[in-house]
This record gives sequence, C-alpha cells and structure tokens, in this order.
Amino acid sequence: MDRRTLLKAAAVGVGVGGAAGAGAAQIFKPAPAAGGVVSASRPGTAGERTVRRLSMVTSWPKNLPGLGAAADRLAALIGQLSGGELEVRVYAAGEVVGAFDVFDAVSNGAADLYHAADYYWQGKAAAYPFFTAVPFGLSAQEQLAWIEWGGGQDLWNELSAQFNIIPMMGANTGVQMGGWFKREITGLSDVRGLKMRIPGIGGEVWRALGGAAVAMPGGEIYGALQSGLIDGAEWVGPWNDFFLGFYREAPFYYGPGFHEPGAALACGVNRKVWESLRPSDQAVLRAAAQAVTAQSVGEFHHQNAAHLDVLLTQHGVQLRRFPDDLARAAGEAANDIINDIGASDGLSRRIRDSFLGARKKLNAWSTNAEGAYYQMRASAL
Amino acid sequence: MDRRTLLKAAAVGVGVGGAAGAGAAQIFKPAPAAGGVVSASRPGTAGERTVRRLSMVTSWPKNLPGLGAAADRLAALIGQLSGGELEVRVYAAGEVVGAFDVFDAVSNGAADLYHAADYYWQGKAAAYPFFTAVPFGLSAQEQLAWIEWGGGQDLWNELSAQFNIIPMMGANTGVQMGGWFKREITGLSDVRGLKMRIPGIGGEVWRALGGAAVAMPGGEIYGALQSGLIDGAEWVGPWNDFFLGFYREAPFYYGPGFHEPGAALACGVNRKVWESLRPSDQAVLRAAAQAVTAQSVGEFHHQNAAHLDVLLTQHGVQLRRFPDDLARAAGEAANDIINDIGASDGLSRRIRDSFLGARKKLNAWSTNAEGAYYQMRASAL
Repeated sequence: MDRRTLLKAAAVGVGVGGAAGAGAAQIFKPAPAAGGVVSASRPGTAGERTVRRLSMVTSWPKNLPGLGAAADRLAALIGQLSGGELEVRVYAAGEVVGAFDVFDAVSNGAADLYHAADYYWQGKAAAYPFFTAVPFGLSAQEQLAWIEWGGGQDLWNELSAQFNIIPMMGANTGVQMGGWFKREITGLSDVRGLKMRIPGIGGEVWRALGGAAVAMPGGEIYGALQSGLIDGAEWVGPWNDFFLGFYREAPFYYGPGFHEPGAALACGVNRKVWESLRPSDQAVLRAAAQAVTAQSVGEFHHQNAAHLDVLLTQHGVQLRRFPDDLARAAGEAANDIINDIGASDGLSRRIRDSFLGARKKLNAWSTNAEGAYYQMRASAL
Repeated sequence: MDRRTLLKAAAVGVGVGGAAGAGAAQIFKPAPAAGGVVSASRPGTAGERTVRRLSMVTSWPKNLPGLGAAADRLAALIGQLSGGELEVRVYAAGEVVGAFDVFDAVSNGAADLYHAADYYWQGKAAAYPFFTAVPFGLSAQEQLAWIEWGGGQDLWNELSAQFNIIPMMGANTGVQMGGWFKREITGLSDVRGLKMRIPGIGGEVWRALGGAAVAMPGGEIYGALQSGLIDGAEWVGPWNDFFLGFYREAPFYYGPGFHEPGAALACGVNRKVWESLRPSDQAVLRAAAQAVTAQSVGEFHHQNAAHLDVLLTQHGVQLRRFPDDLARAAGEAANDIINDIGASDGLSRRIRDSFLGARKKLNAWSTNAEGAYYQMRASAL
C-alpha cells in the first residue's frame, strides 16, 4: 500500500463508507504555510483539570478499517491514559490537509501528530521505506525486533529529526498478498508483458521482471480486470481485498506478496509539541502507540484468516504461490533497489546497512523458527 | 517453559544473577491465608497527589531476562503512565510468596497483581494452557489474534473470574526450540527410549512417541548431558539456551519445537483491586500490558536471532528439523491431549472449541502468508 494504493483507498473507502473529506474540508480553511491551522495546543479546561487539545492528521479516509481504526484507537487511548488531560482529535485525509500533506503539516507545526505510512515521504528522504516496508524486507515481528531492539528507532529518530518530527510505530498490516490474476503464472516467463496493477517499489520490481506495472485507484481495478485492461492486481490482503470482489474476475490468488511483508505505520509528533509534553504524557504517547501496534498485529491476523477462509470455502478462490524463478528474480531486483536507496547519502547508507544486518540474522531465525513451525504444524494437523 | 522449567530457571537464574529470593523472603513474613500481606492498597501521598501502591508478585527469579524484565517494565510503565499515581512494586519468586503461589495470593487478595504463565494453574482449571501454550498451538501473533479479536479474552475472563482474577496478556516468548541432542534423530524410531529432559505437556507428547521424558531443574541439565544421564534437553530458545552451554555437549539443535510455539505470559489482577481503580487506571493497566507484550515479541525475536547467529557461526552448532514422521506422530499425540483437556467440563470444552476453530483458520493464513513468506525470502536472498 503506497501513495497510489492509498489514493485508491481514499477513492473507494476500502468497501466501507466511500470517499471522505469533501464536506469536512469546508469546515476548516487549511493554510499549512501559515502554521497553526489546526492549532498546535489550545489549552482549555474540563472540570478542574487543564485539557490539552492535540490534532492528529491522517492519510486515511474516514472509517477505514485496520489503519484508520488504528489512528482512532490511538487517539482514544491517549485520552483514556491521560485521564482526559490530553484530547486528540483525528482528522481524515482531506478534512484539513490532504493524505500526503500530513507530514509537512506536522513538520511545520500546523498539526501536532500524524498517522500515516512513512514510505510516503520517500521523496523527502530516500530511506523512509525501510521504516514501513521494502520488497523482501521485514515482517511485523521482525520490524518490532529491528526498530525497537536492533538500532532502528535511533536511526528513524535521526532521519525524522531533520523534519522536526518524533517518529514511532503505530500499527502494522502484517504480510500482504501478491495479487489476483486471471490466469495461472507457472514461471517467470509468464510475467513478460503481463499487465498488473502494482504501484510503488513493488511496481519497479514487477517491471524488472518484464511485466507491465500499472497504477490506478482502487475503485477502477475491478472494471479494469473485467474489461481485460489489466491481467492482475494487488491490493492488501484477504480482509481488505474481499470487499472489492476481485475474486469474481481473477480467481487465482497469489501469495504471499514479496513487496510488503509487513507494512509498519507511523505516528509522527511535532518536535516542539513533544518537548512541551510532561514526561508522563510522552510515556502515554509511546505506550499507546505500542499498544495499538500490538492490537493491530492481532486484528490484521484475525481478519485476514477469517476472510481467507471465506474466499477459499465460499468463493472458489484458487490459492497459488509465485513460482521459484519469479521469486528469485524479484529478490535480485529488490536487492538492487535497496542498494540504490542506500547510495543516496550517508544516513541512508547507515540505515540500509543496519537494516540489512538485522535482516540477515532475523531471516535465519524466522525461517527456522516461526516459518518452519507453520510448515510443521500444517503437515502434522 | 512450564512449572518445572520455571523452577529450573529459578535455580540457575538463566545465566544471570543466580538464585533469588533467599534474603528478601525474610523482609516480609508471608501469611497468604490471612490476606493483605503485601497490602492490596495502601494510600499515601507524593506531593499533592495520592499515590496508590500495588504489589505485583511474579513467578520469576530476580533479574530474569525476557520474562522477568517484562514484569519489571510493566510495573515501571504503569507508574509512568499514571503520572506516579500508581506505584507497582515487583516481587521476585520467593520474596513474599513462592513462584507457584502467586495465583492464590492474588486470588485471595494477599497481593494485587501477578505476572506468570497461566498454564502453571492447570491443576486449578484444565483449560489454562490454552492461554499460554499447548503443543501445535498458536504463535505469538496468532495468540494476539485469538485472544484479542477471536473471542479468547472473554473466555479467559470467564475462566479467571472463578478465582477473582482479571487476566491480561503481559509478554510472549515467541517460538521455542525443540531441544539439544547428542546424536541426530533421523526418524520417529530413533525416539524410542531416548532420554530427553522435557517437562509438562511437551513431556507427555514425548512419552507418547516412545521416548523417556525426564524433568529436572535447569542447573542440572548440563551435567546430565555430560554424564550421559540424558540424551537431549529442551530449554527455551537460542537467547536463553546460549548461556547454559548445552551446545558443548549436544551439538544437534532441533527446532522449531512443537511444544510451545509462543508462550503468552499473563498479568492477573485481583478483582476487588480492579474494581476499585478509576477507568483511566484500568486503561493504564491494559495498555501497559499490551505495550509490554509488543516490546517482548520484538525483544525475543531480536535476541533469539542474535544468539542463533552466534551459536551457528562461532560454536559449530548443527541446526536440524524434527523428521516428518516424528512431527506427525507428535501432532496426533497433541490432539489427544487437547481433546482430553476439553473433556474436563463445559467451560473447558467451550475454550477448546473456540481455540480449535481459531487455530484452523489461523493455520491456513499463517502457513500461506508469514510462513510461506519466510520460505520465499530465504530462497530468494
């Protein structure tokens, strides 16, 4: 789910509630350059206590399950944990600033917090994708390992400090699926000329394999599959994919995807706002973000499992894995892209090297522990 | 890591700090039956605020990495999030009550919270292992899915309500390893008569395979391997196993284990204490437990990956998987045990059925998503 995927999400509401923000945008008159549009901190009172109001701008359409819900829960939890002394108001994409303007809004103080995916900001700093997802990168658990225990958070702090932002993990989608296809893919050679809706870095990898990568909003995918404009399309996973009905036009469901093995979402806090918070409030923000991340890992796992079951048992979906030669070629293409990102500048290189060092060890453990366990259990049951 | 494993952990301190509690136990004079030993709630003041002091008794020896650290972090985080209004003091096993008396202490109000593994209480209610770990059960992510989103928490609440306890997840070890062996195991027939140190339900499975399951404290394992008293031993995973040096006597490291695919630890709160807390304080306890769980998933993954690397690259450890016929036979034995647990009483049956229903769907998703991803990445890199 990169910028284009998100635009598509905004366009179709991922099956719930439709497009957002059109009306709400009229309530506020955003002028990000001037700052303070959503007001960084407006003291008020509730009973005897001082209430500190904070604004959280997000990249999500209103009522988006999974990611939007995580932002809503984070805001609500900050309120609860602070005993009501912090009151976070969440703004959907387009309500006060656009989905991809939330970073600038927090960076310049127009808003206090954002909830988004940090790989949206790759244009600002090449290394941002490492903190969300890169092809053949880290799973949700592995990101918790690298970011919180393997040096990732310090590097993320250093990267975002350049933009006056304190970053923290605020959700995770878990492993995303490879996509829906009209016909089976039996080897790398089948990819040549195959038109697939796959945006971002994943699309770069697809092109390197000889395929045609197409970007389009989610609301257009179903029609494009139906008319034959595209041969396949990726979206997110069983939970989110189910609602768009791709299985009716493209019954071969390939997975897992190589492009986003666990997209970590980010909550970024304006540095001055952060420094103005009491230590207990800073602890509230960090703990709430960790708690919401744990909730989100469980929710995506539960919902994806439930919806995969429905797709397989009630809709005749054919589950397939990408052929080995395709996966190997995709791995090589991904390595080139990751190396290119690291070549941008000194900090990008340090981030890439830390990431690759962590991935090497995590890969050995995950493959031999969790991966092999799932394999053993599936055979044994 | 069941009761015997824990006793062993207490005996050797898992390589750090040694045995605990001998001195501290003299400070308090525990009399659990009388209640209030550690005092359920002693109001005090800190500046203008009222400080509520809470006691957390644990099953962990002092300074135990991983699990003990999770309890310490949970207590510290509750303090931070409450702005110092809640002050949780952590007691190591034996300081005021023994490792396996913490449940009773909280149940009868002698202590306010415990941090332990709920499968220790299998003697009180047969279904408790489902909320920690059972052979061929759920991974850490899958437990987050079942317990928080798939109905598990409601059943856990119902089970623990019988004992005046509010339960919540408070850490997770992730996948544990199968164990260290002196010789290779090439098939199920090699297990016949093989003496392995493996306690608890895992030991029951081992016996069903024809092996001899032995229980002994951790401090005795190394000597027993050296003298040939046992042929193999399981402990936890690379992080914890590393410090006990088993690799010097038993170089074949089998994994993953089938017995504990992700041991969830529990924080239990006395019901009257819980009901006396303000909603914001209840939110603090829940969020702190979730945050510490997320931290712990990352920490075990990071540390296990780092220590597996050291074992493989610096100590010539030979990594092996259990043969297919052994895994299949173990799966059958585990199913029998799980079915037996469910036959105990009505609530146990409902818990087992909820667990098995969740496992079926989670198994399909995990195998095809995360499991297949790790496999694809390992081949592609």
